[in-house]
Amino acid sequence: MYRGDMQKTISLLTDFGQLDGFTGVMKGVIWSINPSVNIADLTHLIPPQNILQGALVLGQSYNYFPAGSVHIAVVDPGVGTKRRPIAAQLGSHYFVAPDNGLLTIPLENARAKGQQIVVVELTNPDYWLPNPSRSFHGRDIFAPVAAHITSGVELSQLGTPINDPVTLQIPKPQQTRHGWTAPVIMIDAFGNLITSLTPDFIQGQQVREIRFGFEHISQISTTFGDAVSGQIIAMFDSSDRLSICSVNGNAAIALDAQIGDLIEIVLN
Amino acid sequence: MYRGDMQKTISLLTDFGQLDGFTGVMKGVIWSINPSVNIADLTHLIPPQNILQGALVLGQSYNYFPAGSVHIAVVDPGVGTKRRPIAAQLGSHYFVAPDNGLLTIPLENARAKGQQIVVVELTNPDYWLPNPSRSFHGRDIFAPVAAHITSGVELSQLGTPINDPVTLQIPKPQQTRHGWTAPVIMIDAFGNLITSLTPDFIQGQQVREIRFGFEHISQISTTFGDAVSGQIIAMFDSSDRLSICSVNGNAAIALDAQIGDLIEIVLN
Amino acid sequence: MYRGDMQKTISLLTDFGQLDGFTGVMKGVIWSINPSVNIADLTHLIPPQNILQGALVLGQSYNYFPAGSVHIAVVDPGVGTKRRPIAAQLGSHYFVAPDNGLLTIPLENARAKGQQIVVVELTNPDYWLPNPSRSFHGRDIFAPVAAHITSGVELSQLGTPINDPVTLQIPKPQQTRHGWTAPVIMIDAFGNLITSLTPDFIQGQQVREIRFGFEHISQISTTFGDAVSGQIIAMFDSSDRLSICSVNGNAAIALDAQIGDLIEIVLN
Repeated sequence: MYRGDMQKTISLLTDFGQLDGFTGVMKGVIWSINPSVNIADLTHLIPPQNILQGALVLGQSYNYFPAGSVHIAVVDPGVGTKRRPIAAQLGSHYFVAPDNGLLTIPLENARAKGQQIVVVELTNPDYWLPNPSRSFHGRDIFAPVAAHITSGVELSQLGTPINDPVTLQIPKPQQTRHGWTAPVIMIDAFGNLITSLTPDFIQGQQVREIRFGFEHISQISTTFGDAVSGQIIAMFDSSDRLSICSVNGNAAIALDAQIGDLIEIVLN
Repeated sequence: MYRGDMQKTISLLTDFGQLDGFTGVMKGVIWSINPSVNIADLTHLIPPQNILQGALVLGQSYNYFPAGSVHIAVVDPGVGTKRRPIAAQLGSHYFVAPDNGLLTIPLENARAKGQQIVVVELTNPDYWLPNPSRSFHGRDIFAPVAAHITSGVELSQLGTPINDPVTLQIPKPQQTRHGWTAPVIMIDAFGNLITSLTPDFIQGQQVREIRFGFEHISQISTTFGDAVSGQIIAMFDSSDRLSICSVNGNAAIALDAQIGDLIEIVLN
Repeated sequence: MYRGDMQKTISLLTDFGQLDGFTGVMKGVIWSINPSVNIADLTHLIPPQNILQGALVLGQSYNYFPAGSVHIAVVDPGVGTKRRPIAAQLGSHYFVAPDNGLLTIPLENARAKGQQIVVVELTNPDYWLPNPSRSFHGRDIFAPVAAHITSGVELSQLGTPINDPVTLQIPKPQQTRHGWTAPVIMIDAFGNLITSLTPDFIQGQQVREIRFGFEHISQISTTFGDAVSGQIIAMFDSSDRLSICSVNGNAAIALDAQIGDLIEIVLN
């Protein structure tokens, strides 16, 4: 049997940091159940309990993994309360997470594409570690459930179907008299200011100016290499979202920008 | 042959940081010897040469890995001196480390449970890289030895049995007239203050108050979700150790706490 | 079939940081093409766009991986411009990177040893993701190309041979009347000051003194353990390069040292 035929991938996204071995322990739990699974860290540096940023990073990443992958997302301020632990099949990907909006983007995508959507509340402790703690469901519930999914366990065995998973309102561009305003929804590791405005918002129209505070940018660049070091430019990022960047620098610091600040797109 | 039958796991814990490729190189060495082994990073951010913290993180983690796993721990201020490099089988887990107390908790656990304990000093260079350096035994001795163990090499082939491995004194709770005092032994990535007081210390007794400096906490909570944001609470953590936490915050910063500070547990 | 026979390793070195899931996404792309490959992170904390440091970390690391490994290096200030994306076979290792000097050390090593050198410009989009972005070639070009190499695709299928890959001038020791001066080429995570002076520069000669600013060091130590905590010592590091270290401390901070500062080696 060719091993690739059965080898599955799990991705991990948490706000656990990298100091304490917590994410390594989750891998130990997974490989105790299914030793042939590949495990990729997405990030463990989501700012503590920032569910929106977790949802955005997961949303821009999951689709690059093999069909059938299982994505564990744990940003979980409600751990130990009545918030539901869930597993979901959304199109060709599986997800395991607390039900707090982390799965917003794959849910929206699956709905927009008319793909299969199955969500279950995790109620069957047969697939958890025995005696789960109240504060580390990543280790005791989410990791073992994900491992069992890669071993072929069906969602229906894991718990009870639900049809009201929590979703977040991800700030969208707003139309204005002269074009659009788009709020900064995320600041990445390079200090780029990212919005949710994609090229289809301005398709066929001509951009006169991008404004952020006192900064006026005359065009949307196609690459960093077009500009000189330190210049503030606008471009569509690798997920096709309008972003403001400082070439070889950090736009968030240079422009003293925050999540929620508004970028103005002026059209002709 | 089903691959899972032979696939072993190695965990890595070091104070090497993540800048220089040192831990990646250890993986290269391991996969040069046994390409089918799974490797999980526990953490590489142990504060430089803080053996106690390395021992505590290893101690709370190893047991979640599959039986037969090999755990490499390298926090090694004595590298290049006469401190002994060792390998150990402690119950169903293997360990490779400098002999400086990093294995204290698995040693204590194996003794307490009457499990098998075998410790050897690594004296056989046949299982090392040729011409080992004096400053990077992680790469030149510990990684290749761990890989050879996953390939079936016996501890007895690796070196000479010893029966006096170094152990640390992990600060324990002290009984008082009114209950216990427990020193903070670790501060985790969330800023939680962790002690070594487990539920069995106070079994069947009623807690009147937990005190830390001017902070008086009236009960041991069962979950973060019981409290409001910023509130200082006491709870047993996911390893069942009494901890002081700030809900959605950082108790170490909020309380200006240090390793060694005393937490007072007042019983009725 | 024994899995080890076909299992290849890929290493990843970038300046992407660990916040945004970018490096996890590259793993998703790789395992979508070849699910049986092992992937090791070297580092993702190369200072943004510091090609020299990327080249140095790659140069000290690749040789510890199995023959046939593929090393992806992405420090890429020119992404989206006309800088060439390349793949190379240098001795028994493969490399995928932008053509900006990241491969300097493996190129120099292969030349010095008379090993096989094949470099191609990546011009065949059949082995890329469809519609590659202009800002994330790590995901869209380098990761899929590396995965295809591990699956047996030949370099000649990936693009057009070139014989002028970019190389960096790595600062070398300069001979003086009294010995050598060696510039600091890298500061590692421990704060050690690393030069490119190897033992062969001073073979058979006696060192009278190592000088750095006001610091005079009387010998080259063979191990950290020889000295007391906080002492400034000189030693050859695990890659056999003369380094200045603070025992159990950080020499870069203690000595206020920068990349490019000169270390003087006085011989008898």
